[in-house]
Amino acid sequence: MLPGWERSVKRDGGRKLGVVVNLEGGKGREPSIEPLTRLVSGDLDRVNATILEFMQSPVQLIPQLAGHLIAAGGKRLRPMLTLGAAAMCGYRGDRHVRLAACVEFIHTATLLHDDVVDESALRRGQESANAVWGNQASVLVGDFLFSRSFQLMVSDGSLKVLGILSHASAVIAEGEVQQLMTTNDTETSETAYLEVIRCKTAQLFAAAAQIGAVVAERPAAEEEALEAFGLNLGIAFQLVDDVLDYSAREAELGKTVGDDFREGKITLPVILAYRRGDDDERAFWTRCLGELEQTEDDLSRAQSLMSQHGTLDDTIARARHYASIARDALGIFPDGPAKAALIEVADFCVNRAY
Amino acid sequence: MLPGWERSVKRDGGRKLGVVVNLEGGKGREPSIEPLTRLVSGDLDRVNATILEFMQSPVQLIPQLAGHLIAAGGKRLRPMLTLGAAAMCGYRGDRHVRLAACVEFIHTATLLHDDVVDESALRRGQESANAVWGNQASVLVGDFLFSRSFQLMVSDGSLKVLGILSHASAVIAEGEVQQLMTTNDTETSETAYLEVIRCKTAQLFAAAAQIGAVVAERPAAEEEALEAFGLNLGIAFQLVDDVLDYSAREAELGKTVGDDFREGKITLPVILAYRRGDDDERAFWTRCLGELEQTEDDLSRAQSLMSQHGTLDDTIARARHYASIARDALGIFPDGPAKAALIEVADFCVNRAY
Repeated sequence: MLPGWERSVKRDGGRKLGVVVNLEGGKGREPSIEPLTRLVSGDLDRVNATILEFMQSPVQLIPQLAGHLIAAGGKRLRPMLTLGAAAMCGYRGDRHVRLAACVEFIHTATLLHDDVVDESALRRGQESANAVWGNQASVLVGDFLFSRSFQLMVSDGSLKVLGILSHASAVIAEGEVQQLMTTNDTETSETAYLEVIRCKTAQLFAAAAQIGAVVAERPAAEEEALEAFGLNLGIAFQLVDDVLDYSAREAELGKTVGDDFREGKITLPVILAYRRGDDDERAFWTRCLGELEQTEDDLSRAQSLMSQHGTLDDTIARARHYASIARDALGIFPDGPAKAALIEVADFCVNRAY
Repeated sequence: MLPGWERSVKRDGGRKLGVVVNLEGGKGREPSIEPLTRLVSGDLDRVNATILEFMQSPVQLIPQLAGHLIAAGGKRLRPMLTLGAAAMCGYRGDRHVRLAACVEFIHTATLLHDDVVDESALRRGQESANAVWGNQASVLVGDFLFSRSFQLMVSDGSLKVLGILSHASAVIAEGEVQQLMTTNDTETSETAYLEVIRCKTAQLFAAAAQIGAVVAERPAAEEEALEAFGLNLGIAFQLVDDVLDYSAREAELGKTVGDDFREGKITLPVILAYRRGDDDERAFWTRCLGELEQTEDDLSRAQSLMSQHGTLDDTIARARHYASIARDALGIFPDGPAKAALIEVADFCVNRAY
């Protein structure tokens, strides 16, 4: 199924060493989420239908606003983790579809509230839901989607899943509040930053993957392995996201470069640059991100300082570390297309930085 | 226990006609929530302890901000409905305490998000949580409390309760969005307004009361009776709240008169005044509430038009109608202090307008 890629699996005395994908030589295919997308495409269509069904409401603005965000697409990475994990666990039922939709609803609710939070801080004027319909509607429709997600979980009927996702939701909110408190604080430590992204991003990846094993009623060790896979994948994903905010080619990612900078968000590329810089540079970071006093050339200078200190590359190196842990967490599962597709997602998350 | 009040219970050939409390003559005690507060005071202390325990987080801002709102008190009316209903149903366990805390968490999360919504519309500059800590923190801490509420429900372990409260949460969000859409629309009908308050306020009252019967494992008819009690009580409560926004003595209620007016909220006192008014008056309402162009004397004129058309009195008359339905819904329960206390709450909700 994935010939170019599967050849790169090394074995050493029967013990797998993980998968090595050549990220630099340009030989062979680039790691991608395509294999996972193909693997779960039938299920994903049903997830999208479930999302569409459950975002309906007699209150017109709700499906309008939710549709704006949900139809805009995105990779559907989180629900695909649930679907892929369920496939890898040999699950044959239907529950994973509904629960993958729950995961996407929670993610969407978080995005809606995030955009409110970010706009209030910066008024960046992007065409996000809050820019079109206002902050109030975004807050309330986020609440609706969050509630709908719990209704969907209740209809699934598993207290275990409810426990996993309600815990994840609380941890996400804690992470978001913590992030709010570190915004503009250039003294934020790498440890504090990692804790923020573990909570605000990685916890939902972890829950999404774990649920695949839960519906398949697999042993605790497999649940934990998938949870670890999702958690480390989520950390790697966010680290690379934070790199892309300073390095992405806008057209390719549909993402504006410099949002984090303009909002004064303290991410690892900044933390490393601040700690590796001299007094002048620290004064620069403090003025730009601490006091949000920015001129037109400041983003360029920030990027040049990051390049000088290698902080984007080193952030990617940190991401690669977590992606490796994610890959190895899946070591206990038998080989097969689902496992290969999930492992490739870990490689993709790091590789998309290039 | 409530001698002055119990004497007012009328019987007719063994069939109860409900309870008549003399609201006008000034004879006897005024209806109050005190009897309910006394009845459930031990449980309510445990609810407060549960709230305090579950609003904790390593992220300091969360208990600070949540504590600001929760410690500020309020009547704890919704959780008391759960406790009172459980008492009336003869419940002897512990679950009602935790579930009453869930109800209060949902209410608090809603309040936090409401304040964000209202401030964004009007910047009224009250010392609400969002005024002290900002909109972003209020949104996120609201999300946290909402998640915590679901974690508490999951720990209770009843899918039935989870279904009731997740449904209520979705309906509340729908009501809030609907309210947002009617704001500034002076053509809003009484029917549309009633639907908004049924969703945004009464649904949680209904769920809170119903849960008392659910934990006591009472028959469906009693669950439905308590749900109807809560729903109608909630509608009456909100109608009177909307009256108080034009008539309250500020010191007594800790409430600012005229908030709804300044925000352009379309409530029943306005809807009736608009429909009963002449063209000049309608132009006045449209300018003040539709276009939010207000001068200093406009609130006084609004109050005077309401007085002229009797719209505050008639809104209270509507409230009395729903309070009557609430009282009669409890008819199937045996008499006793819990039933008496709950019925008195219905009378209190109307009577507090005077």
